[in-house]
Amino acid sequence: MMAHAAAIDALRALLGDRLTTGESHRDQHGRNEAWYPLALPDAVAFPESTEEVAEIVRICNAHDCPITPYAIGSSLEGQHLPIKGGLSLDMMRMNKVLAVNDADLNCVVQPGITREELNTELRATGLFFPIDPGANASIGGMAATRASGTMAVRYGTMRENILALEAVMADGTVIRTGSQARKSATGYDLTHLLIGSEGTLGIITEVTLKLQGQPEAVSAATCRFESVEAAVNCVILTIQSGIPMARIELVNDMMVRGFNIHNDAGLPEKPHLFLEFHGSPAGVAEQAKAFGEIAADFGATGFVHAKKPEDRTRLWAMRHGGHYATSALEPGKRTMATDICVPISKLAEAVVRAEDRTRALGLTCTIVGHVGDGNFHCGLRVDPDDAEELKRCKDFVNELNDLALSLGGTVSGEHGIGIGKQAYMQREHGSALTYMRAIKTAFDPNNILNPGKLLPPGN
Amino acid sequence: MMAHAAAIDALRALLGDRLTTGESHRDQHGRNEAWYPLALPDAVAFPESTEEVAEIVRICNAHDCPITPYAIGSSLEGQHLPIKGGLSLDMMRMNKVLAVNDADLNCVVQPGITREELNTELRATGLFFPIDPGANASIGGMAATRASGTMAVRYGTMRENILALEAVMADGTVIRTGSQARKSATGYDLTHLLIGSEGTLGIITEVTLKLQGQPEAVSAATCRFESVEAAVNCVILTIQSGIPMARIELVNDMMVRGFNIHNDAGLPEKPHLFLEFHGSPAGVAEQAKAFGEIAADFGATGFVHAKKPEDRTRLWAMRHGGHYATSALEPGKRTMATDICVPISKLAEAVVRAEDRTRALGLTCTIVGHVGDGNFHCGLRVDPDDAEELKRCKDFVNELNDLALSLGGTVSGEHGIGIGKQAYMQREHGSALTYMRAIKTAFDPNNILNPGKLLPPGN
Repeated sequence: MMAHAAAIDALRALLGDRLTTGESHRDQHGRNEAWYPLALPDAVAFPESTEEVAEIVRICNAHDCPITPYAIGSSLEGQHLPIKGGLSLDMMRMNKVLAVNDADLNCVVQPGITREELNTELRATGLFFPIDPGANASIGGMAATRASGTMAVRYGTMRENILALEAVMADGTVIRTGSQARKSATGYDLTHLLIGSEGTLGIITEVTLKLQGQPEAVSAATCRFESVEAAVNCVILTIQSGIPMARIELVNDMMVRGFNIHNDAGLPEKPHLFLEFHGSPAGVAEQAKAFGEIAADFGATGFVHAKKPEDRTRLWAMRHGGHYATSALEPGKRTMATDICVPISKLAEAVVRAEDRTRALGLTCTIVGHVGDGNFHCGLRVDPDDAEELKRCKDFVNELNDLALSLGGTVSGEHGIGIGKQAYMQREHGSALTYMRAIKTAFDPNNILNPGKLLPPGN
Repeated sequence: MMAHAAAIDALRALLGDRLTTGESHRDQHGRNEAWYPLALPDAVAFPESTEEVAEIVRICNAHDCPITPYAIGSSLEGQHLPIKGGLSLDMMRMNKVLAVNDADLNCVVQPGITREELNTELRATGLFFPIDPGANASIGGMAATRASGTMAVRYGTMRENILALEAVMADGTVIRTGSQARKSATGYDLTHLLIGSEGTLGIITEVTLKLQGQPEAVSAATCRFESVEAAVNCVILTIQSGIPMARIELVNDMMVRGFNIHNDAGLPEKPHLFLEFHGSPAGVAEQAKAFGEIAADFGATGFVHAKKPEDRTRLWAMRHGGHYATSALEPGKRTMATDICVPISKLAEAVVRAEDRTRALGLTCTIVGHVGDGNFHCGLRVDPDDAEELKRCKDFVNELNDLALSLGGTVSGEHGIGIGKQAYMQREHGSALTYMRAIKTAFDPNNILNPGKLLPPGN
């Protein structure tokens, strides 16, 4: 008999053909773009309203049936994989913009809308939503994983850009957190507790996002350095100098090689910085000049400016496609993508040690980074069936996480914990982990919400 | 026999003469600057280390003895008042700067240091800490109450400016939350859960703060308007236009009268805006010009510029002394200070209705506001022994809170809940309140940490 048959029967009665146990849907919802193995749900549901999500959760809670929220499936630490089976809750039919409050610089959206869809809808308002992880991720997924991306250095991460949430809790209760006001001092901050909780505390069904005015002037550029250390030291001094960079992205030589293969970029295979400036025309010129003076001190050459929108679009599409360009380096393998974040003063040490170590281990590793935040990613090509190579990759990731913690940083700036980094939760959080577990137990006593994620096994 | 005698004996054995039951200390720790009645602790402790705080908490937890953290005593909703008796935990001997990491734009401090002491210590570094509620509050108290103040419009509130915390939990466990990295995606956000928890979930013993580079250029100004509505509409358009104001403060005509009496300000008794611009010299000029054009459209006159540091210091000292200048209006009474925060588009409606209503009720009411955030304060002069006047004031506060919620806002932008606004927790948070209670119960099962605050009685 099928696992969770009673729950699935009750869900089918509620949802009709928006509940499926079909092979292809289950397969799609069990895949991921990282290296984790297939993890099939027993069924997939497609809710269309908060009330339906609440009813689904009530049914699952009554039947001890796990629920794993799903949208685009772009998470990189397996957050969306239903590793305990049960229900994959596909939020993509809840993808409406419910309100654009342009006078208050915010909007209210359902979780299934993607960041690109949202920005398309916003275009006529003169406002935009700045958070951009590489993938065209859903807003709900980005909230649940505390996503950030290239513009976080200027505009903050999802943590700083969500005013309010609606969520369905484990017993089907619908809660609202936050308000349309820019700040509040009333009660415990459940908004921030849910942001980054990876679907383990509640299912986000509505998000109120801060919006930004489209800058009057935008200018982008690339330049290259003789060493990754010089590039990163240029970033450190730029940030310390208070230049309000909109984007400042590191691309190592291996990543440039990927862009040359995948995007026919024709770039010299040296470490690069990809840059963007936002402001008034005079402000942008002032920022670019100040950056240029710092960069010259670190030997930057080969400045290419992208002033036309289409040139900027091409530049950032290439950068955002880094995951795919990494795939071009050793076709047939998977990418083990990992990220850490360190205090900016420790960034050069961290990047140089990471790159040196991958070379010593004979690994193909792209490094790209939201380096203004002290955050960078390593993309390791790996054949999961090659036990020896897989071990070398895992050993490197372990060393990298140790390095992040020893430098006062964190084992993930944006990819999160999921199933991939649970072993580091105790090491990073120590006795605070006890209080995280206490929240999970209090909020989801039957452990039906994305079980097996974020919190390591044990007590 | 003295209440909590066993706990006090054990605490005295630990702390010696840093545990006192003396009348004058108890009296000092039971007072407040708002209108709430005296609330005496049974004893006052003066810990000097995190380890001592942990030991104190263990003793109190074992003896069911309430603990109310205390520092400057400037909270305005009674957060520091030991209304259930027990121990007042005076954190002012833990007032060291533990580290200034200028390369990472942060510092690590103990909770008892005040914001002015911190900025004095930082002066030589070229960095500053921007959060400034009116009082010279302690950093620990500001963290615990999610304080903001005049520069929050530019730099954010305590919520956006704390990277990491150390806290002692109800059973004496010491936890660390966050890291020195600018962002993280690892685990539940306990940092933000503790910020604004008003000492009810844990006692903050160390705070890692973001710092800002001192702006290259600073310029301040005041101007006046014919109506409070014109002043607020000028603010709304300024914010919507994206001008990065460092400060934009509303002062109503009654507040100006207070400044004229208390500070001999000599200002026309009209609504004013007090402004500050931060940036490069060219940037400040650009901002001031853009603001001036908007202000002219709303009939602003009487621009006075404060370019010299001493003139700016005098201006902001006057503004920060608004609570005391309010006292000058009807000597012998107390001030019922209340604040709300609404979406910026609703601010003119909220301020105009608040001012009209106080006039209709015959109340003396100063209105000052961090209006760039949609946040404003009403300072009502009241004789707590005059039951009829007290009722009129309480009725007004009730109406104001209803107004905030009906406009999509919150019942407090920065003063918090304490003992004064618990009646609004259910109304503002609805079913989310259940989850706040669940956290409190999980973290502090014996309810020893600041009992009677933030959460309303009941289940």
